[in-house]
Amino acid sequence: MPVNLRAADPEALAPVAGLELGWAEAGIRKPNRKDLLVMRLVAGANVAAVFTRNRFCAAPVLVCREHLAAGAGVRALVVNTGCANAGTGTQGLADARASCAALASLLGCAPNQVLPFSTGVIMEPLPLPRLLAGLPAAVARLAPDHWAQAAEAIMTTDTVPKAASRRLTLNGRTVAVTGIAKGAGMIRPNMATMLAFVATDAAVGQPLLQRLIRRLADASFNRISVDGDQSTNDSFVVIATGAAGGAPITAEDDPRFGVLAEALQQVTVQLAQAIVRDGEGATKFIEITVEEAANEYEAAAVAYAIAHSPLVKTAFYASDPNLGRILAAIGNAGLEDLDPARVQVQLNDVWVVRGGCRHPAYREEDGQRVMREAEVRVRVQLGRGCAGTTVWTCDLSHQYVSINADYRS
Amino acid sequence: MPVNLRAADPEALAPVAGLELGWAEAGIRKPNRKDLLVMRLVAGANVAAVFTRNRFCAAPVLVCREHLAAGAGVRALVVNTGCANAGTGTQGLADARASCAALASLLGCAPNQVLPFSTGVIMEPLPLPRLLAGLPAAVARLAPDHWAQAAEAIMTTDTVPKAASRRLTLNGRTVAVTGIAKGAGMIRPNMATMLAFVATDAAVGQPLLQRLIRRLADASFNRISVDGDQSTNDSFVVIATGAAGGAPITAEDDPRFGVLAEALQQVTVQLAQAIVRDGEGATKFIEITVEEAANEYEAAAVAYAIAHSPLVKTAFYASDPNLGRILAAIGNAGLEDLDPARVQVQLNDVWVVRGGCRHPAYREEDGQRVMREAEVRVRVQLGRGCAGTTVWTCDLSHQYVSINADYRS
Repeated sequence: MPVNLRAADPEALAPVAGLELGWAEAGIRKPNRKDLLVMRLVAGANVAAVFTRNRFCAAPVLVCREHLAAGAGVRALVVNTGCANAGTGTQGLADARASCAALASLLGCAPNQVLPFSTGVIMEPLPLPRLLAGLPAAVARLAPDHWAQAAEAIMTTDTVPKAASRRLTLNGRTVAVTGIAKGAGMIRPNMATMLAFVATDAAVGQPLLQRLIRRLADASFNRISVDGDQSTNDSFVVIATGAAGGAPITAEDDPRFGVLAEALQQVTVQLAQAIVRDGEGATKFIEITVEEAANEYEAAAVAYAIAHSPLVKTAFYASDPNLGRILAAIGNAGLEDLDPARVQVQLNDVWVVRGGCRHPAYREEDGQRVMREAEVRVRVQLGRGCAGTTVWTCDLSHQYVSINADYRS
Repeated sequence: MPVNLRAADPEALAPVAGLELGWAEAGIRKPNRKDLLVMRLVAGANVAAVFTRNRFCAAPVLVCREHLAAGAGVRALVVNTGCANAGTGTQGLADARASCAALASLLGCAPNQVLPFSTGVIMEPLPLPRLLAGLPAAVARLAPDHWAQAAEAIMTTDTVPKAASRRLTLNGRTVAVTGIAKGAGMIRPNMATMLAFVATDAAVGQPLLQRLIRRLADASFNRISVDGDQSTNDSFVVIATGAAGGAPITAEDDPRFGVLAEALQQVTVQLAQAIVRDGEGATKFIEITVEEAANEYEAAAVAYAIAHSPLVKTAFYASDPNLGRILAAIGNAGLEDLDPARVQVQLNDVWVVRGGCRHPAYREEDGQRVMREAEVRVRVQLGRGCAGTTVWTCDLSHQYVSINADYRS
């Protein structure tokens, strides 16, 4: 069902010097599947992270924030699927801390040098004994070339493991940028994301890395929506191990910064789009571009009004050019002074709306043709200014309902 | 599929003196179905209306506003299904005006004494010739006891005609309150509604009627959501013909006002709930009550965050007590300073959440039992103040996707 998305060839995923990955089948929720991931970082690696803004953020998110604030440096990450450890109160916090302490003891570091991540069902207790029992096997498998298995180990309703990688050269040194992500439903990140881990062995100063992650999130994970629901556990982490050598990049005017930032953005956008392509029940990949807005906020409001409309999404699923639904969604975006007569809409190469009504050259068979394509670009011009934005979403299918009606059973 | 909803017994729908209804099968979109409704009002009837806030509001909505503003009095309403006449530009306005003029000519009144209403597919031209050809038959059928047929004539994806009625006595005079409504999808009215027409033969002064309609909308149609999409055509009309006799009610301290307002509210709430019970694909009727909010706005934000969450709605469809999804929706409602530890949630008689996590007394089998019921009341206490609100919604089923993937075909 994923739209133009295949598992990455493991050979194409460049190891990142200074970072090793190991997994286990811990049986957290179901037996015989990779559901536990450990990442070990070299001493001195810099780590930046952004998290969900959901007020019911999960215990591991709280512990991550606490450990990052302590500033002791990050030496390891532990990730489980099958249980979100959210809505679990003080017991959830104790469980997240205990998983950090256990891994720290196995790796010989301090508990607050470990970051915990969980994903899965909300408001059920973390099966800590199974997680702890799985850690030694995961640690035993630690190796730099396990990115493909790591992408598998963090899947929940994902049907395809999501990984992306680039190699680049900075001042003659070969550097890798590799990342993995998971997520298929409850996807509407806001200044954060689902679970995504992107690493480079380039050296980047911590303050610069923290500024960069915001920009990366805004250009990738903050522009996608599957169902408009924001998770309790969204976390996006960027790691710069520095193990490739060279002086750290600490300022944006360093000539290496632009090259590295571009590679990081390519990897994060590819991962973000992979989440939409593998959106729960997705049969279409939809790019919504809003132009001629007065500012970026209203451009985003219009783009998400379209992306979140169940009627627009079901029309895409049906390949039905019932395109008035797009107009209704635009009118519903809260722009009080929108002038409908200035609005234009294009789908791929077909102009659909001009002057707020059906384009004179529009023919139903053209609309039908474009709606049948697996990738559709919706371009909206508001005629109000020169700001714009792009978001990526998918359609709403019977399969979405089936997946979410069956997820726990 | 509708949840505890049956067509009203025609005998139970009280005629409203001073108002006649007639219908036709005009073949606007499909043959052999009632799709055109005419209502004729006695001279001197007062009419109040509220409309969609969608910026792409339909041509008939614009013409209604124009004719109401002219203040010539309303003598007739004309309603068609099968085409929304929205996103149709100047041609759409001309078509809406032409339908008023034609009916005015048949009834012997001025064109601006006719209000037009349309519902159906957006961004397709109104088939005006068919509508005009159908008018004489509708006029020929005008009679006061045609409320049941009128409810049928305005249906689109509705599976049950929606009508409600009350009889009451004001100062010894028998008065009727009868209304009809349509709507099953694209339902998330805001200061307005889908198509709903409620009439009484009591006499009510125009300014008081206009204040009353806002209050009625806020207590009924503004509290429902099927899919969060706001239509381009939402219209809610209250008619007071005055034909029952007696001095007009012009102030809220008139002892008759409270009795009449209560009957009007009962009818409008019953119609609003009927729309949700017959929501596209609905298998459950869900009442969401938010209490202990700091103000009504945040209570509504939380209630709609739950009502619009596809994950909550699919869990209800599956009868799966995956209740962490309700917590995630609450956390997603934009209350930056919400304290999760104060949040409590109850489903019917079962306490689910206390202190922001699973209630100690909660048992999965209790959650399972309550999720299997056809009517579920979700009660959320935020622990922030003493404001509250209630909204009504339904679940998200395979059938919703089927209906909206097939609507035009």
